[in-house]
Amino acid sequence: MPKEVEIVSIGNELLIGKTLNTNAQWLAKRATSLGLPVRRVTVISDDVEEIAKIIQEAVHRNPAFIITTGGLGPTFDDKALEGIAKALRSKLTVNEEALTMVEGKYVKYAEERGQAKIELTPPRIKMAKLPAEAKPLPNPLGTAPGVAVKEGDVTIFALPGVPSEMKAIFENSLLPVLKAAAGGQTFFETSLYVTGIMESEMAPTIDKVMHDNPHTYIKSHPIGAEKKPSLELHISTTTEDIEVAKKRVGKTLIQLTELIKEKGGKTQHPARVERLLH
Amino acid sequence: MPKEVEIVSIGNELLIGKTLNTNAQWLAKRATSLGLPVRRVTVISDDVEEIAKIIQEAVHRNPAFIITTGGLGPTFDDKALEGIAKALRSKLTVNEEALTMVEGKYVKYAEERGQAKIELTPPRIKMAKLPAEAKPLPNPLGTAPGVAVKEGDVTIFALPGVPSEMKAIFENSLLPVLKAAAGGQTFFETSLYVTGIMESEMAPTIDKVMHDNPHTYIKSHPIGAEKKPSLELHISTTTEDIEVAKKRVGKTLIQLTELIKEKGGKTQHPARVERLLH
Repeated sequence: MPKEVEIVSIGNELLIGKTLNTNAQWLAKRATSLGLPVRRVTVISDDVEEIAKIIQEAVHRNPAFIITTGGLGPTFDDKALEGIAKALRSKLTVNEEALTMVEGKYVKYAEERGQAKIELTPPRIKMAKLPAEAKPLPNPLGTAPGVAVKEGDVTIFALPGVPSEMKAIFENSLLPVLKAAAGGQTFFETSLYVTGIMESEMAPTIDKVMHDNPHTYIKSHPIGAEKKPSLELHISTTTEDIEVAKKRVGKTLIQLTELIKEKGGKTQHPARVERLLH
Repeated sequence: MPKEVEIVSIGNELLIGKTLNTNAQWLAKRATSLGLPVRRVTVISDDVEEIAKIIQEAVHRNPAFIITTGGLGPTFDDKALEGIAKALRSKLTVNEEALTMVEGKYVKYAEERGQAKIELTPPRIKMAKLPAEAKPLPNPLGTAPGVAVKEGDVTIFALPGVPSEMKAIFENSLLPVLKAAAGGQTFFETSLYVTGIMESEMAPTIDKVMHDNPHTYIKSHPIGAEKKPSLELHISTTTEDIEVAKKRVGKTLIQLTELIKEKGGKTQHPARVERLLH
């Protein structure tokens, strides 16, 4: 069983449809490509009780990692850490390492703005209040540190909601940990475009090819409607050896292509598929 | 208490980060604007057990509506209805009304393609297999009907994953039901752009203005980093009377603008905010 990831996106702006959840997509793609499948993404509001509840639920499902985004800033509605602390029956206290990080940022901002000093007000100190046992993760692009905390076998990473800061902390602090946990598993995927066959007509063919290739997964995505059929077939596999992955996917592609031709359909390979087949 | 909505997005393509979840954003925006807050969005895989589990969890939280997207098509991995049936301890059986809808589509497709007949194969009949007690919802743009089924006070709507079909069924079949349930509540929102004040400096001001305006909600979204501060303040309220909503938001905007000026910050109103203030 590969180790699993859950993503928790925190923010009212997501639940009112103001903001598109590109953070979850980015994290899902990144984790999957490292060989760590994402089991669930949950979007919840900036509410301590809701955050605590989803963290407890996710911990109960026992993934290797829970990654949260949002709710780390200085304002009253930044409640990620309060929610996580509540879920873990812990308290928020000023973490000296985090406080040094935050302090350093404001010293730099003051210099850049030509001010003598920017005071460490309560909203600024708030960003250094972590659950006990938690560790701060440096934020190269913003002020609020990311946070890592363990609960049993589950590691919870709390990242900011600003995409550039979220990605920077992921690449610097999470990537090495996730890579080590994945143990060399790789996710390999490609697509095949099909015209002239309805999705309902492809269904038995996909069943047959998946039966003959038990380690590859095929999913059909209709692009047009049934009456003007155009399909994307997405083919993927997860394995330790990239050459094995390519062979598996290549064999699946050849069988699919032949069966589609027999049915009178046309296939179109992206360039990288051509390379796999020849 | 306003009636609540949960959104469940079904699809491996979302969990591997291949597809951005624009369906959830669209539904969240639509439900919110109708006065029905969205409490949670959950993304899960094309797995019967996972679908059954999330439906049971969501039903347990007792929202007025659960809207699922994805998993209604003809292929083996379209498992939304099997999962919903399992959650409700029901069985999938051919629904005559749904079968007539599906049959009608293939008669039309055959005509359009100049074929005598398109046979109703098992993958096509599958789209008409509904949980007992469920009702099909006509799909004006595609083949698979949407589905509505009640469990206690909770209405579950299952919509296709293809965005155009999802939206068409929403507008035709869900909108009248959701409007009636919302009972005239309206969500009203606007934004104010602020430069020259750090988010950490705005925090106490937002606290004060929210305290003085208990029916409006203010959330700050940093656009730049703390050192080159630029913020979007999103101000919203939900009420039955749109004039009350405008007055509330207008009063909040005036107070915010004054306090920001006192602090040496600059505000920029979108045109519609100008109209509210004068």
